[in-house]
Amino acid sequence: MIYSSSLALLTDLYELTMAYGYWKLGMIDQEAAFTLIFRRQPFQGSYAISAGLETAIEFIENFHFEPSDLAYLENLKAPSGDPLFEKGFLDYLKDFSFKGDIYAIPEGTPTFPYEPLVLVKGPILGAQLLESALLNIINFQTIIATKASRVSAAAEGDEVIEFGLRRAQGIDGALSGTRATFIGGCRSTSNVFAGKHFGIPVRGTQAHSWIMAFDKEKEAFDAYTNVMPNNCLYLIDTYNSIKGAKNAIAAAKEKKIKMLGVRLDSGDLAKLSIQIRKLLDDAGFKEAKIMASNELDEFIIRDLKKQGAKINLWGVGTNLITAKDQPALDGVYKLAAIQNKKGEWVYKVKISEQLIKTTNPGILQIRRFYDDSGKAVADMMYDMEMGLPETFELIDPLDLTRRQMIDKRTKSRDLLIPIFERGKRIYNSPKLPEIQKNTKKELETLCSSVRRFLYPDPYFVGLEKSVYDLKMKLISELKNG
Amino acid sequence: MIYSSSLALLTDLYELTMAYGYWKLGMIDQEAAFTLIFRRQPFQGSYAISAGLETAIEFIENFHFEPSDLAYLENLKAPSGDPLFEKGFLDYLKDFSFKGDIYAIPEGTPTFPYEPLVLVKGPILGAQLLESALLNIINFQTIIATKASRVSAAAEGDEVIEFGLRRAQGIDGALSGTRATFIGGCRSTSNVFAGKHFGIPVRGTQAHSWIMAFDKEKEAFDAYTNVMPNNCLYLIDTYNSIKGAKNAIAAAKEKKIKMLGVRLDSGDLAKLSIQIRKLLDDAGFKEAKIMASNELDEFIIRDLKKQGAKINLWGVGTNLITAKDQPALDGVYKLAAIQNKKGEWVYKVKISEQLIKTTNPGILQIRRFYDDSGKAVADMMYDMEMGLPETFELIDPLDLTRRQMIDKRTKSRDLLIPIFERGKRIYNSPKLPEIQKNTKKELETLCSSVRRFLYPDPYFVGLEKSVYDLKMKLISELKNG
Repeated sequence: MIYSSSLALLTDLYELTMAYGYWKLGMIDQEAAFTLIFRRQPFQGSYAISAGLETAIEFIENFHFEPSDLAYLENLKAPSGDPLFEKGFLDYLKDFSFKGDIYAIPEGTPTFPYEPLVLVKGPILGAQLLESALLNIINFQTIIATKASRVSAAAEGDEVIEFGLRRAQGIDGALSGTRATFIGGCRSTSNVFAGKHFGIPVRGTQAHSWIMAFDKEKEAFDAYTNVMPNNCLYLIDTYNSIKGAKNAIAAAKEKKIKMLGVRLDSGDLAKLSIQIRKLLDDAGFKEAKIMASNELDEFIIRDLKKQGAKINLWGVGTNLITAKDQPALDGVYKLAAIQNKKGEWVYKVKISEQLIKTTNPGILQIRRFYDDSGKAVADMMYDMEMGLPETFELIDPLDLTRRQMIDKRTKSRDLLIPIFERGKRIYNSPKLPEIQKNTKKELETLCSSVRRFLYPDPYFVGLEKSVYDLKMKLISELKNG
Repeated sequence: MIYSSSLALLTDLYELTMAYGYWKLGMIDQEAAFTLIFRRQPFQGSYAISAGLETAIEFIENFHFEPSDLAYLENLKAPSGDPLFEKGFLDYLKDFSFKGDIYAIPEGTPTFPYEPLVLVKGPILGAQLLESALLNIINFQTIIATKASRVSAAAEGDEVIEFGLRRAQGIDGALSGTRATFIGGCRSTSNVFAGKHFGIPVRGTQAHSWIMAFDKEKEAFDAYTNVMPNNCLYLIDTYNSIKGAKNAIAAAKEKKIKMLGVRLDSGDLAKLSIQIRKLLDDAGFKEAKIMASNELDEFIIRDLKKQGAKINLWGVGTNLITAKDQPALDGVYKLAAIQNKKGEWVYKVKISEQLIKTTNPGILQIRRFYDDSGKAVADMMYDMEMGLPETFELIDPLDLTRRQMIDKRTKSRDLLIPIFERGKRIYNSPKLPEIQKNTKKELETLCSSVRRFLYPDPYFVGLEKSVYDLKMKLISELKNG
């Protein structure tokens, strides 16, 4: 972690007031199960790429209250002016550490609405205290990794460089955001801080200010060529992109260097790149790349490619690092079950005023089924404690008329794997390049119609019938009771 | 700062390759002036509330390269495999600190497109190295403060609570984002971390999980009332909001407490709040508040108020903390002037392929003019070095047909104030509550038509004629040369 203190206070106050309540009521060790799910497909696509797990693990491993945290909490007042918390509770927090179990879907896996990305099972107080930070970390990195996977798909194998530091939402928006873009498929970044912390390859040459610091553009290119002959990718749109390309070619020729390429940052990228490709080829710079930047996203990249743009290096900033068209995943963290005094699990639903906000009960695992060609065909959410029936019947949680029978011998795997056991980390995350590879491999298991940017074929995710029946029973009891 | 290390590497690589170039060419001490501006009004409104300055100041004060930063840079390779930087440059960075002057608009000031929010004047290498981080910090906090000012305006004096930690873009998205919401007008937050670091009042009671951890809703309310009788704002929509309100009333009555209120988090907030207001009033809880949360923004709050909603506490999350409809301000940092070897300023423009990306030359100050009633009428961008003419003629930088003459005796003030002098901080930021008050006062100087959420009356910002003429001359020279 790059923070100088514990992040235990990175929480909504209500987690602490509830924790205080559990402590006062002697409920701190009651076992509970929480699931972290999202409800809506991001970007009008179908999937979200899970990301942020390693960051979340580090947060949990470092979770503790420091003296200054406790001093701050001690001074908090209720609206009446009384202290909000008793001293005894703060003493309890002083020695607190998380003691529960955690299961999660590894980073780089396509996931779908209502699937638990994380399952936290353990003493209720500790499980509750993780909520806000887990949501913050997983929601953000997942939305960004998902966006990056779409941008990378549009680039069809070309290198995509993350360029968003200046427009990212704060320092960590740039730092862990860049981590997530790499998981989603970006191959490098302009962000040196992310390069240092995560080992992501960094790239960069010059800004308009370099060109403007000299009397003429050609002079600026000559100066740069002298200084860094091995890293010459010329920014050519400061005054006029075609003239800029000619100046770049002249500068590289005079110094006899291997030009890496040129960058366009304004104007019509399709038209200009075609003209400039010809200039470069005619001058013998067939290997020089044409990089483009300027408000790019998956749709513009796809269109530019369709229009014959000769761009083969994509610098993507604002739209990627902020996931501009949907800057937040709508992940929530809900109580799914709690043990009663006899140690039996009591399953829980929240029915709310809106169907989409109704939760699924149970300690849910996800089984993904594959056809013979290796394509994923459906996901089943089933309860880890209840065990599985002989025949699998899957029911869409939002539409009971959508059902699917699956032969239990169908090739499958369970997505959630153990991460913490009784508070101890038992999982080592793969290195980032491995996760990136995993994302690519996992995305290939989805049919292309499921990966479509807009109006994709809805991938089938169902509740295993006994969970579905339990949910209906609980809802009916709550509505009638 | 909450970071354990310097943030000098929070930069795009090209700042460092350019710095290396200036170092190699002996240009490190050449004086340059950069301005940080944005180009488009956020949210289709007219203004942006400047924010992030104190965070930026702390960044600059702490700016230094640590041994691990230099070791990382030493290992960076050019595409050819050679080291990217010479050892001598890294030795230079070891002792580097910023030595320039900085002017900026104080936090909480309404600003308009093309106005410099920050002006950095000093040795070019140092001024260049600040670019990426300054943009990251100022772009983010400014967009969020602006959004918060709109949400607060819609709430018409009701308390708005920032609720976005779980949906914020990473840890700092939540932390400095919450700071910015406070500057924009939010009065409290659920984020304890932000409460600790910035002294912002924190609020929180219970989540759905608290209600679900008990067998019945009433039992959950009773338990909470016992534990925290002074902090009872009941979340009533877990099962049914009307029944929830009745349970809350019963719980509060039985324990004879002063109920703070109830919270709605789903369903039709207008209809439900009207019904629940009546239930509360009839039960004698006339002072109990009704809080609403659930995808709120300035437009929904305004509509709910119009429809007679009886809500007087607004918990605003995702749409606020991510500025969902425009998650980034498009701020840029451009070279505006550079000194030649004789120490004379040479003014610079970048013409680019797009008019909107054309920059303004000069070391610009902004003068804001007021009418007799104290309303702001126009802003003039003028050059600090060139001095002012006898008559003020203002010309819209994007539309030369829009002009305005201003009598020089008109009441006015200059917006940019000195922050650093030769690398030394000479400005103390006001405390956050002062900044919040300043925002409110400053917004009142704008006509209400300028503050309209959509299609506002465009506020007039012009270049002082001599700057405009200089710009045209420079463009024409560049186009013809």
